[in-house]
Amino acid sequence: MEIIAKIKEIQEKSSCLRAKNKEIGFVPTMGALHQGHISLIEKCKEGNDWTIVSIFVNSIQFNDQDDLNFYPRPLDEDLDICRRFKVDTVFIPSIKEMYPEDQLTFVNVNKLSTNLCGKYRPGHFQGVATVVTKLFNITKPHRAYFGLKDYQQVEIVKRLVKDLNFDLEIITLPTVRNEGNLALSSRNKDLTLEEQKRAVILSQSLRKAFSLLEKDVKDPKLIIKQMNSLINQEPLAEIEYIKICDPAYLTDLDYINKEALVALAVRFGKVRLIDNLVWKKEEHV
Amino acid sequence: MEIIAKIKEIQEKSSCLRAKNKEIGFVPTMGALHQGHISLIEKCKEGNDWTIVSIFVNSIQFNDQDDLNFYPRPLDEDLDICRRFKVDTVFIPSIKEMYPEDQLTFVNVNKLSTNLCGKYRPGHFQGVATVVTKLFNITKPHRAYFGLKDYQQVEIVKRLVKDLNFDLEIITLPTVRNEGNLALSSRNKDLTLEEQKRAVILSQSLRKAFSLLEKDVKDPKLIIKQMNSLINQEPLAEIEYIKICDPAYLTDLDYINKEALVALAVRFGKVRLIDNLVWKKEEHV
Repeated sequence: MEIIAKIKEIQEKSSCLRAKNKEIGFVPTMGALHQGHISLIEKCKEGNDWTIVSIFVNSIQFNDQDDLNFYPRPLDEDLDICRRFKVDTVFIPSIKEMYPEDQLTFVNVNKLSTNLCGKYRPGHFQGVATVVTKLFNITKPHRAYFGLKDYQQVEIVKRLVKDLNFDLEIITLPTVRNEGNLALSSRNKDLTLEEQKRAVILSQSLRKAFSLLEKDVKDPKLIIKQMNSLINQEPLAEIEYIKICDPAYLTDLDYINKEALVALAVRFGKVRLIDNLVWKKEEHV
Repeated sequence: MEIIAKIKEIQEKSSCLRAKNKEIGFVPTMGALHQGHISLIEKCKEGNDWTIVSIFVNSIQFNDQDDLNFYPRPLDEDLDICRRFKVDTVFIPSIKEMYPEDQLTFVNVNKLSTNLCGKYRPGHFQGVATVVTKLFNITKPHRAYFGLKDYQQVEIVKRLVKDLNFDLEIITLPTVRNEGNLALSSRNKDLTLEEQKRAVILSQSLRKAFSLLEKDVKDPKLIIKQMNSLINQEPLAEIEYIKICDPAYLTDLDYINKEALVALAVRFGKVRLIDNLVWKKEEHV
């Protein structure tokens, strides 16, 4: 496995691979790799000749300095995982390599960035859209892999690819969960064992929403209210938002018709967790 | 000469050329080609295996609907010029092809976009930065060619390439002028012959600035004042701005040290003309 820290070097590598008609798959990560990332890496290995994983804690997408400082960075373990799953190239740039001087250029995806996490993390999706644009230009992939736990991020990246005419395909994979149904996240490592157990309340509230949707409840307020009460039974949980949105436009729904995104962000102490589900009405012919 | 209107088609073309190790040069234009564009095409032909010229009047960079509507579009003449100068591929997308739905994604280059023309054309450089990003992803060039008449645009594009890690080189060429020293511009076609003659006042005022700079005048206000009086002798001319800036940061200078950008925008009727010069102190050893 090749480890590259320099942008110029990986750009040359990718050009070289492309000149040999090799197809490049790319899994961008912030490290602290877990089974969710591994599912992306495995899918990437399957569909491409060459798999690049980037590990870069992108400073400009953190709106909270503490969050950035405490973000886990277990580099040796990450590299072991990459080796184990036969990643071809790991790209590990320094902050200085990615942002050698004041970054003046930013990419914004309007509308899709304003609701949900965008509302609570000002500048976050600008940071994401900008680093993803940079990483695409650096790794020049044919396909890039993203997990649906970050649903809003996925929608933003897909739109960015379309709007900016990146000649690549975005492949999305479902959220991976632990035995307790907690969505895997690098941030879970910062939860105490007790908090991890209690955090199952997130997926339980989504299951609650799902069952109400299946029972044809049409009023988002009603569903949100029930999710709210459920989560509030857990004293460690502090709700940031629970929202029911149009899955394509990410706007709040007044009325649920054929499909809905149910998304939430909840804090346990200083750890912020997100989860979501997309519900589609089954068509009975 | 090949004429392509579809994005997918030119992306495949470019990938194919790259796979054969051909180097691609790109000259983005809004058409109404003149000797300035031709100098870019010739330079591009010299330095690359394949020359792509795009002709696209980019709606999203026009802050003024009239300006967009009246912008000249002499397509047949443009194609003749491209043929004459042995352009390999002309890319002529429709508005619908470039903006099939609401464009939500925009690229902004902060700081460099705020002064000079950015002050008088809100949204203009966002439109430029966004379309340039799209066109780079569409044509995948090794080198792209820009004229220094649009000095601020060049600085913004260079910064965008650096900040977003586009793996390509920006090549700039000096402003081309007519016999009367008027900077060539597609917009000159909208001037009456009388106005064209009178518009030489722009380059005359720059020459005035140059001679004052050479005489070691350090105060921008003094130089601007003299340029102002000169241009105001021309009753058809309506000054939008005259500025003396740092050539790298595009911020107004209080004091001229070793170098200066002198830039101006002046209207003749509904036609807006720009011109500039960069002065550097000659070092006497």
